[in-house]
Order: sequence, then structure tokens, then C-alpha cells
Amino acid sequence: MATHHSASYSLTIRAVIPHEPGQFARVAAVIGEADAVLGAIDLVRVDTGSVVRDISVLCANEEHGYRVVDAIRAIDGIRVVNVSDRTFLMHTGGKIEMAPKVSIRTRDDLSMAYTPGVARVCQAIVDEPEMVWNLTSKGNTIAVVTDGTAVLGLGNIGPEAAMPVMEGKAMLFKEFGGVDAWPICLDTTDPDEIVLCVKALAPAFGGINLEDIAAPRCFEIERRLQAALDIPVFHDDQHGTAITVFAALRNALRVVGKELEEVRIAIIGTGAAGTAVTEMLLTGGATHIIGCDIDGIVHRDRPGLDSTLLAYAERTNPLGLTGQAAGAVADADVVIGLSRPGTITVEMVRSMAAKPIVFAMANPTPEVLPGEVEGIVAVMATGRSDYPNQINNVLAFPGIFRGALDVRAREITSGMKIAAAKAIADVITTDELAPDYIVPSVFNRKVVENVAQAVAAAARLDGVARRHDGDETDAPVG
Amino acid sequence: MATHHSASYSLTIRAVIPHEPGQFARVAAVIGEADAVLGAIDLVRVDTGSVVRDISVLCANEEHGYRVVDAIRAIDGIRVVNVSDRTFLMHTGGKIEMAPKVSIRTRDDLSMAYTPGVARVCQAIVDEPEMVWNLTSKGNTIAVVTDGTAVLGLGNIGPEAAMPVMEGKAMLFKEFGGVDAWPICLDTTDPDEIVLCVKALAPAFGGINLEDIAAPRCFEIERRLQAALDIPVFHDDQHGTAITVFAALRNALRVVGKELEEVRIAIIGTGAAGTAVTEMLLTGGATHIIGCDIDGIVHRDRPGLDSTLLAYAERTNPLGLTGQAAGAVADADVVIGLSRPGTITVEMVRSMAAKPIVFAMANPTPEVLPGEVEGIVAVMATGRSDYPNQINNVLAFPGIFRGALDVRAREITSGMKIAAAKAIADVITTDELAPDYIVPSVFNRKVVENVAQAVAAAARLDGVARRHDGDETDAPVG
Repeated sequence: MATHHSASYSLTIRAVIPHEPGQFARVAAVIGEADAVLGAIDLVRVDTGSVVRDISVLCANEEHGYRVVDAIRAIDGIRVVNVSDRTFLMHTGGKIEMAPKVSIRTRDDLSMAYTPGVARVCQAIVDEPEMVWNLTSKGNTIAVVTDGTAVLGLGNIGPEAAMPVMEGKAMLFKEFGGVDAWPICLDTTDPDEIVLCVKALAPAFGGINLEDIAAPRCFEIERRLQAALDIPVFHDDQHGTAITVFAALRNALRVVGKELEEVRIAIIGTGAAGTAVTEMLLTGGATHIIGCDIDGIVHRDRPGLDSTLLAYAERTNPLGLTGQAAGAVADADVVIGLSRPGTITVEMVRSMAAKPIVFAMANPTPEVLPGEVEGIVAVMATGRSDYPNQINNVLAFPGIFRGALDVRAREITSGMKIAAAKAIADVITTDELAPDYIVPSVFNRKVVENVAQAVAAAARLDGVARRHDGDETDAPVG
Repeated sequence: MATHHSASYSLTIRAVIPHEPGQFARVAAVIGEADAVLGAIDLVRVDTGSVVRDISVLCANEEHGYRVVDAIRAIDGIRVVNVSDRTFLMHTGGKIEMAPKVSIRTRDDLSMAYTPGVARVCQAIVDEPEMVWNLTSKGNTIAVVTDGTAVLGLGNIGPEAAMPVMEGKAMLFKEFGGVDAWPICLDTTDPDEIVLCVKALAPAFGGINLEDIAAPRCFEIERRLQAALDIPVFHDDQHGTAITVFAALRNALRVVGKELEEVRIAIIGTGAAGTAVTEMLLTGGATHIIGCDIDGIVHRDRPGLDSTLLAYAERTNPLGLTGQAAGAVADADVVIGLSRPGTITVEMVRSMAAKPIVFAMANPTPEVLPGEVEGIVAVMATGRSDYPNQINNVLAFPGIFRGALDVRAREITSGMKIAAAKAIADVITTDELAPDYIVPSVFNRKVVENVAQAVAAAARLDGVARRHDGDETDAPVG
């Protein structure tokens, strides 16, 4: 049987092998017997009596990789000290670092960057506190703060295990938005402690991006922090998602020729993202939204609603529907899934109004797969990169913080969020617009530029910008 | 009268000037009349009816600079929008940034650095928590934590104004030790809150460098944090100073041919640094130390001693001296000033034992100037770079954290501190040793290397190292 070997499942195995003729041949033989392909062989170092080698092996899948490693481990006298794959190698040692912008090579450098010169710079901030924006990294730096309670599809994995995601997020901020982001992974899930910590560490940051904090604590934490701080506090899982969904929906509605004010929208999943999407669509002009959670349609009289869901019910479901989610989807123009695989069925999509729009955002497996509803839906979008119309937060957050930092915004208002969504949508021209092209590529550099400009302009309009057009004050007399 | 114009007091003045012939000549004339020298003139941009220029002006001193700027400001129709000097320019926009170690240019990059690939990396840390050291930036990253209460000679200037110093410190960590350090400037001076915050944010860091936190709170904060955390907590103002002073003293004693165990040492100033220096010297073998503060000699029976000073009194002053500092200095072999200018007089130095050693560490002005005691002292050192024998913490902290991170140390023990001091001292060979060469240059790269190796070895010896010689495990099977 032919095995398909893939580079994405290639392993690098570091092994200590006796430094004698024929020893490596034993390893090579075992790899062949295990039906794997031997790749590059690197010499790491020669110790007394042994040699350390990095051996690359192409496998068919993870399980196959384990078998190959076990087979090598079983060879008498050979010690496997490390096994890595390409993805793990990318993360090894961390994906981010701190970089000085100027080098310290001479006493002059040292005396200007550090004592005694730095004292004049500190004094300038004492004399005029707003100068911290000019004279430190605050003006371009945000904290990516998590408590590790709602990480990707993994759930509550804690602050250490959340780090790889936060570093990845920080990289995206820099790559796409030129924003310096540093991960802060908090070893507490207590809202009071999280609020206390983030308030305390805010002075060195120009913004706070909350990330992967579970609902409903995320609502309270964001609200309290924004009330206490004079820098933007933005929970990306809520607002980043809401903004990109709103952007995609604007374009999807243009494709099918319907108006936001008139369509009926069913939201499947009323967690952090679902609540924020609903809020955003209402602010944007939607009038008819019905939310559903695991217990069915959210309505005022449903027993056991918590305060968040009660507030939700009061702003939605104008017809007072009750029952299961299927009832909300029937005759809806738009269905937005923000829950988990299987919560939107093909039958439900068939029951929708003409030219249905379906956004199935569950990650990595959408609520319903595009292939299942092909020919039924007019426009389909997911969170995945391997289908058309990928709705990805990375379209929003780099440009939003870029724009907010550019004008030293005090907060991120609804107006700024709406402006960001419109800016994303408008990257696609009317000529380009198509059912399979309602959102721009995450690699389209125009997105960040447009979003940042729109967000900065909206911040000024909303009166939350510290910096106005033509402000040029960068540094005072020392 | 000829004015001495210096590049270190050169200003760059950004001015909006009417876009009409002859307008810039008015600026140039005013600069000449003010006895300043016109340097480079750059065009920033042309607006409607006006032009924005950066005008470099060489002045004699700060006050002269102010006069020149005021004179330009007084010109009708010309608007000065910014004035900067060279030191301020170096700090403008901050001195540090976050840098991704790998770039995200393709969907493949994105899928490995972020979703979905990152989920496997997170899961690996969930499965084996110690992998956070391998798979994230924790292993090479420390937090530089301050509350801004004891910054340089400036005192309690708050977290924002402390930022330029913390960024400078972070740069030094990277430049000299390859350590990624990020500033955390806390907007609280409450020890409980500081401890809570630092404990909470510890997961993403491999060490905590406490910086510029006022005594006596710094003692409690460090103690409580080290007890709570499994990563090193190091208050540099205490231990960095103690280590470099100890290193310098070892070599100074070699110069004069005395033994640490036998010399009498007077410490002027028993704050954070003085207490730590005393502690270190006692651990290192000193038997006869007398501490003095603003109220004179610290002794057991002095009324009003707080718990820190009482503990200090119990370990020092074996002869039970009382009275003013001069009494402690008389007949002392070594005087170490860690207080403020003027607390050590020439008369006091004259009263010392033969071949006196004087370390005057107050910054920027030493307790007594080297020129005042020339010919009286055998060995003199200060914290300044413009005299021989600069005792600078930068000799210690980069190598200490480099060594601690290299072995993933749980704490920094006395043994590690002593090892660091010896490593610094030993950079200078017996042949090189001289009264004006007892400490190596901060730019001597051998210092960090030697310190890091000595600290790592001591950590292993003291049983606080997670990583042992030959550990090669870098990444697991995914």
C-alpha cells in the first residue's frame, strides 16, 4: 500500500547514536521498515563515544509519526532526545522578542538612553504627563490580555497554554498593523483581580486587547476596565468578530439586493461573539434579529434568563417567537452561526427566505459545511481559509488599534467599530463584488490602511481622539 | 563674548512658516541675533500657504536653547510646533518594540503561527506544563517591574514618567544579555496590589526584575513574590548594586593586600542598596560592618529603629559604636557611600586606616569627589563613567538573568549572587589589576559571558535549576 508522505507531518528527530560504524544505518533501516521517508540528516555535535544527529523523517500523519519515533526509540543503544515537527519548530523558543530601536554601543549612547540623560526625559513627563505618548513606547504598544479561559476551540486551558495564541496574536498586530503588542497571560480568573491587574499595568500601554476570556465575565471585565481607563479596551472575541461579520453582511446584502433594515436575521449562539454581533447589527440599523442558544429562541418570557440574556431578549425578537432555533431560521434572510458544528442543518437552510445568506463561523468545523448547502444558499461564508469568504478577525483588529493609536483614542466607540466594518466592506468594489467574494483577503494590505483611517476619523468625530489633524508635537525642549 | 556651542545642546525646531519669499530669512536672522548657530534645515512638507521646516540650532546650554526658541516663537506669523534635542529624539516614539521572530507572509505561515496549527502547540503545554519554557517566549523573557517610587535621583515620579528608564533597562538586558525584557509600570504603590499583579502576570515571564521601588516596601514585595513564584524575583537596586560593589571590593582588597574577613567597613546609607550590600558582604565573609543612616550609626539600642534596621543592627556593628557616621569611618579600611552628595567628607577619609578604600556611589554626584581625596585614598570608585572604576549595575543584571534563564532557575540564590560578583571581579587578571582598574568596562563582552556561566553553575549547585547540563528537549511530537 502506498503511503502519502507530507512535509506538514515531517518530523525532526534528535538522537544520540553510538559513534561507531554502522550505527546510523540501523536507524535508517528502522525508518524504512516503518514506511517513512528519510530526509535531511544533520550533525549536531560529537560527544565522547556518541554523536548527536537531527534526522528529518516524512510521515503520513501524526499517528504514523508516533510509530516511527517509537520504532527508533526501541533500537538498543540509541537515545531519542527530541522530536519536533514544522509547526512546533516555528513555536520553539517563542515567536516574539523585544527589540531595541536604537543600539547602545558607546558611552554616549548609554548616557542618552539611560543615566544620566534619561532623567531629563523622565522629568519632561513629570512636567507634562501627556508627553508619555511621545517619549515612550506607550503610543504604539498594546497589551494582549487573557486569562486563558476561552482559548480557540480548546476552552479553559489556563494562562501558560494560552501563550502560543497570544504570541501569534501579537505577531499579527505587528505584521498587519505595525502595532507593538505584548502578551499578558494572567494567572487569575477572578474579574476583580483581572480588573485590578489590567488597571495597574495600563500606564505603559496605549490600548488593551482582551482575548479569549470566557463569557459572561468578559462583558463585566471590559465594561469596568473601559470605565476606569483612558485608553481603548477592546475584547476582540466580541467586537473583532462583530465588525468582520457586519462587514461581510453588508456586502452579502449588496449581492442579494436586500437592505439591513428590512432583513430578518437569526443568530445561532448568544455567547460573547453572538451578543456583540447582535449589538453591532442593531447599531448598524438592523431591526429584526432573533437570537438562539442551546435552549432555543431567546425571548423575554423564557425562564432562567441571566441579566445578559434578558437584556438581549429586550432588544431582539420583535415578533416574540418561542421554541427551537429552527423556528427562528424559518423565513429568515440571514443566519449567522456562532456556536458549534451541527447547530445549523440543511433542512433549516432550506426553510429560509429567498436568496438566503448563511455565515457558519464555528471554528475549525462550521455549523454547516458549504458543500452541504451548495445550490441552496445565495451567499455562504465561514471562518475557514479553505472556503471562499473567510470571515477572520485579522481583517479588523490590526487596523482598529492602528487607527486608535494614531489618534491616541481614549476608547473604541460604536462609531469607530461601524466605521471599521464599512472600511473592510468597501475594500471590495461593486465591480468585484460576487457571492464568493464578499470579504477581502487577510493579506490585502489595503484593509488595514482603510480601517485605520476610518477608525481614526470616527474617533475624532466621536470626540475620543487626543490627537488631531496637524498635531505635530513630538518632543519638548529638554 | 564668545559662546561655546555644543552638539549635545543642539535643538531641532519644527516651525510652520508662511510660504512666501523672505519668510525663512526672518527666522535665520533671529537665530543669529540670539547668538546661536544655524545648522541643517529640512523641509518637512508644504501645506496650503505655509511650509513646515525642521531647523537645527546649536546652543550653549539648556537655558540658551529656551531663549532661542522663545525668540523664534515671538516672530509674527511663525508657529513653532515642536522643539526637540538629541537625547529627546532618541526617546521619541519609545526605544523598544515587539518583533516577530518569524514572518507571516502566506496562509501556511498563518495556519502554523496562528489557527489552526497553534492549537496543537497549546495542547502540548496543557499535556506537559513545563513545555511553556520551550514553546513560548517565556524562557527568554523577563518583566521589568516598577511602581515609579524611587526612580534614579528623581524619587517618586510615578509609573508613566518611569517608563523611559524601564525601556532603557530593557534595552540593556537585550544588548548585553540577549534577554527579552518588557517594562511593566504599575499604577499602584500598594504592596498587596503589586504582589497580586506580578503574581498574576508571571506565567508569560521567565523572571521578574523589580526596579526603582522605594524602601522599605521593596523588601516585602520581593520576599513575598519570591515565596509565591517559581521564577527568579530580583530587585536590581538592591542586589545588582550589592553584586557589583562586592566585585569591586574584592579587587580593591587585592590591590591593597587586605582580607575581607579582617577589614572594617563603614556603610553610609542603609536604604535598599545599603542593606543589600551589607547582606552580600556578610554572606561573602565580612565580619566587621558598621552601617550609618541620616541619624548616625545604626546600633541595637538606638531608639526608633524599624524592623528592617533592627535586623540590620543585629548583624552589624560588633563593637557597638554609637554616634555620628564620622565615628564609624574613623579607622575603617573601607567606606561605601550609598546615600547622597556630601555625606563623606575629606576629613572623614583622612581619619580612615592605612590604604583606605572609598566607594562613593551616589548618582550623579558622589558622596565625595575623587579629586577631593586624591593622594589620600588607595582605591576610589564611583557610579560615574567619567572617573576610573565605575561601579555600574549593568555589569551584573544582564549576565545574572542570562544565566538564570539558561538553566530556567526557580530563584536567584545567595550562591548565584556571590558567583556573579566573583565572575565580574575575575574578568580582571592579576596582571591587569591596578588602583584605577578594579572593575571591567560595561562594554567588555566577557563580563556577561562569565557572569552567566557562573550564575548557571551556581544555580545547579544550589538545586534551583530546572534545566541540567545536556538537556536537549526542545519540542515534543505534536
